[in-house]
Amino acid sequence: MQITLKGIALLLGGKIVGNDDVIIENIRPIEEAGPGDITFIANAKYLKQLKTTAASAILAAPQTSAAGKNLVLVDDPYAAFGQLLNIFYPVEHSFRGISRDAFIEEGASVSDEATVYPRAYVSRGAKIEKGAVIYPGVFIGSNTTVGENSILYANVTVYSGCIIGKRVILHSGVVVGSDGFGFAAPGKANNKIPQVGFVQIDDDVEIGANSTIDRATLGKTWIGRNVKIDNLVQIAHNVVIGENSVITAQVGISGSTKLGKSVIIGGQTGIVGHITIGDNVMIAAGSGIHKEIEAGQIIAGSPQLPYRQWLKVEACRAKLPEMKKTLEELKRKIEIFQEQINE
Amino acid sequence: MQITLKGIALLLGGKIVGNDDVIIENIRPIEEAGPGDITFIANAKYLKQLKTTAASAILAAPQTSAAGKNLVLVDDPYAAFGQLLNIFYPVEHSFRGISRDAFIEEGASVSDEATVYPRAYVSRGAKIEKGAVIYPGVFIGSNTTVGENSILYANVTVYSGCIIGKRVILHSGVVVGSDGFGFAAPGKANNKIPQVGFVQIDDDVEIGANSTIDRATLGKTWIGRNVKIDNLVQIAHNVVIGENSVITAQVGISGSTKLGKSVIIGGQTGIVGHITIGDNVMIAAGSGIHKEIEAGQIIAGSPQLPYRQWLKVEACRAKLPEMKKTLEELKRKIEIFQEQINE
Amino acid sequence: MQITLKGIALLLGGKIVGNDDVIIENIRPIEEAGPGDITFIANAKYLKQLKTTAASAILAAPQTSAAGKNLVLVDDPYAAFGQLLNIFYPVEHSFRGISRDAFIEEGASVSDEATVYPRAYVSRGAKIEKGAVIYPGVFIGSNTTVGENSILYANVTVYSGCIIGKRVILHSGVVVGSDGFGFAAPGKANNKIPQVGFVQIDDDVEIGANSTIDRATLGKTWIGRNVKIDNLVQIAHNVVIGENSVITAQVGISGSTKLGKSVIIGGQTGIVGHITIGDNVMIAAGSGIHKEIEAGQIIAGSPQLPYRQWLKVEACRAKLPEMKKTLEELKRKIEIFQEQINE
Repeated sequence: MQITLKGIALLLGGKIVGNDDVIIENIRPIEEAGPGDITFIANAKYLKQLKTTAASAILAAPQTSAAGKNLVLVDDPYAAFGQLLNIFYPVEHSFRGISRDAFIEEGASVSDEATVYPRAYVSRGAKIEKGAVIYPGVFIGSNTTVGENSILYANVTVYSGCIIGKRVILHSGVVVGSDGFGFAAPGKANNKIPQVGFVQIDDDVEIGANSTIDRATLGKTWIGRNVKIDNLVQIAHNVVIGENSVITAQVGISGSTKLGKSVIIGGQTGIVGHITIGDNVMIAAGSGIHKEIEAGQIIAGSPQLPYRQWLKVEACRAKLPEMKKTLEELKRKIEIFQEQINE
Repeated sequence: MQITLKGIALLLGGKIVGNDDVIIENIRPIEEAGPGDITFIANAKYLKQLKTTAASAILAAPQTSAAGKNLVLVDDPYAAFGQLLNIFYPVEHSFRGISRDAFIEEGASVSDEATVYPRAYVSRGAKIEKGAVIYPGVFIGSNTTVGENSILYANVTVYSGCIIGKRVILHSGVVVGSDGFGFAAPGKANNKIPQVGFVQIDDDVEIGANSTIDRATLGKTWIGRNVKIDNLVQIAHNVVIGENSVITAQVGISGSTKLGKSVIIGGQTGIVGHITIGDNVMIAAGSGIHKEIEAGQIIAGSPQLPYRQWLKVEACRAKLPEMKKTLEELKRKIEIFQEQINE
Repeated sequence: MQITLKGIALLLGGKIVGNDDVIIENIRPIEEAGPGDITFIANAKYLKQLKTTAASAILAAPQTSAAGKNLVLVDDPYAAFGQLLNIFYPVEHSFRGISRDAFIEEGASVSDEATVYPRAYVSRGAKIEKGAVIYPGVFIGSNTTVGENSILYANVTVYSGCIIGKRVILHSGVVVGSDGFGFAAPGKANNKIPQVGFVQIDDDVEIGANSTIDRATLGKTWIGRNVKIDNLVQIAHNVVIGENSVITAQVGISGSTKLGKSVIIGGQTGIVGHITIGDNVMIAAGSGIHKEIEAGQIIAGSPQLPYRQWLKVEACRAKLPEMKKTLEELKRKIEIFQEQINE
């Protein structure tokens, strides 16, 4: 693809500083970019590289200046970089239409404008809306709906009765709607509590490879609009995740816990069941959350602590052996004092 | 479905307090239940809601009383709730019989009374017993047996030579019988040790979505009767899990470790290899277990501690910065004493 | 299979002590081995069992002696055990050739000497080289290459544009090339940054069941030669793992982190993004790594500490309640001194 810098600035709504005729052919990271490439600076710590980069142009924040360089100034250079990637590398699928080699049960409803690859499976009562793309090995259970323009990559499974919104992306191996983990008399009879609820995934959600979202016992497990979930994440039955939240890889959220909007959770964090996490909470990677968190808090550690306290606690923790030694020395000295006093 | 409360009490072996003619049409959680619904109280902390619920009937423990309410008294209300769900929402499969679009290798044995969906794959020497249900995308390796009435949901993989018992449920994405992780000279040559054992899964086991159970190096990896395993759990080669144990999501159990009966393990716990965990042990979520645990112990933390000690340790941990400050103050005071004494 | 001990010694390049005519029919662990079996001792702590084992022969390290026993002395008995397993139990696949029931898009290139099972899917531009084995349910994206003699077990997914080397083993449920987790304005707009790079997996890599390797944002995510990755591991976009490294189950490595050669990482460890881990580093299970590690270091804990310091810190941590009590006692005593001095 070839496009002038002027064309790029128009597409991104940016302002050019420098030569707007330069031809851009590719997008590269700043340390690799050369002639014909556009790159970006989203972080002040890379400003140094602005002087030395051989890129033909750089996306940068307003007010950035660099003598002799061609800049496109945009409000959010990283988001603009994403937009450019979309233009240079549009998402492509190797197949179009509804394959005769897909298995579509009688009573399923598939839009003529959907794509269903060979080897996909759509059960009765399911509905695949226009623009949706169903890859090979995908299983859609009965009465499940897949909304417009959603993409289900190879080997995704969605059990029966679930609702997948519009523009949702489910990466390979994702399982939606498997039974929640509920047993009466656990460790003894382990009587299975049937899980007869469903999963609702709202518009613009993306879920990473091999993540699992269990169906509710009754009612629904609910992933809100524009939530982004990374790989190998576990979402238990009846969990609710508020819109725009971001859940990093290998996080586990236990049953019936409710997350507010715009919650950000670092990788491998575990969250106990039946609690509430407020809006805009941030949780550091590797945390163990056992009780509710009010809106806006920043939390870390296992068991959880406020972030600033956690930093201090961990600084002390590394010095525990010294503290113990000091404590023993003081104890000895005090014993000596006591002896001196007693004499 | 419509059934009188009398009918429900008969099915559950419960005792009615109130009107046994009331018609029940659905099951709902206590906070949502209204006329025509039955609900349940399994936990004393919800007893307050007994007065205010609009449900037509409530499953409750013996001795419960509530003026003007229709109660069904049963020994275990939560288990009874599960039984009722089974009656109102029986498990259904959208397909019956052995599909011509399944791929069954020559030399496989599939009961006429089994269900094999289109797109399932059964290898030579495998045996699928009556009542078993094999969903699309399931792969059954050669010489593997699937017992009566077991359900393997979409995209489950069972490698060759494994034994799956009766009434086993494997959720989507489960992998049974992949190679254990064994290499000679790790970090250097990484010579693969072939994993030539198998996996045995006994009757009434349920395994959650995307969990992995590796085959043994020699001999077997063994999941005992009625064990319940949640999603994204890793069971390494030659592990043995005693009957009725409950393993929560994202737990990892390393090679050759043996768990007793009725062990309950909280989510994201990691257990080292080659150790023994006794019967009835309970391990809190997020623990790191590096040495054996005797029967009946309750354990928490990483590294592990007895649960009560762990509670005390963690209470102190949060106060480490104060402790450090106090320690420094005492040190200064003692230095002053010494100076005074020396004067 | 039947083979004389002499034959075995020849195959392994070992030296026999004892009777070289004995017939070996099977391989068993030392505690189970009987007549006709060969076993091995790879660890000095099992030397006692050398005297009591009923095995017909034992693989052991040079200089081992045991009166009346038949030994095969080899440099690395565990590796030799692996070689023997390969001989007694060669890897077998139930199918050979390229199935008509596989779905191979026009423009894919599949070697006549490859095996493609029924129900596998190969996209246009993909290349499957000779000796490769592609199981049912595998999806190979467009322009992806699978090198000679690699095995992709059932339900593996490889997205488009990836490179899989020679003799690579991908276990069931592995996902290679799913989108990295990148969003501008996280928690707010969550603008997707398209992930247009790829994954390169070098020769002799093995990846365990349900592990996920994300494609790079730009450039490549790179798994070096002979790296071994266990089950349920998460490798984020643009990560580089140096050759011969060993990554145990449920580890998560965040974006753009670079591991050196021969790094060994214990299970459930989490590693932050954008850092460098030197050659030959060892990281204990359950660690939380937030900053770079120099070559050769041994590290443990979360947050990370040098291994020896971590041992001391954790020993103190268990004694925190006692330390707190002692501290309070000393404080009281000093207050009493002060009162005495003030009197």
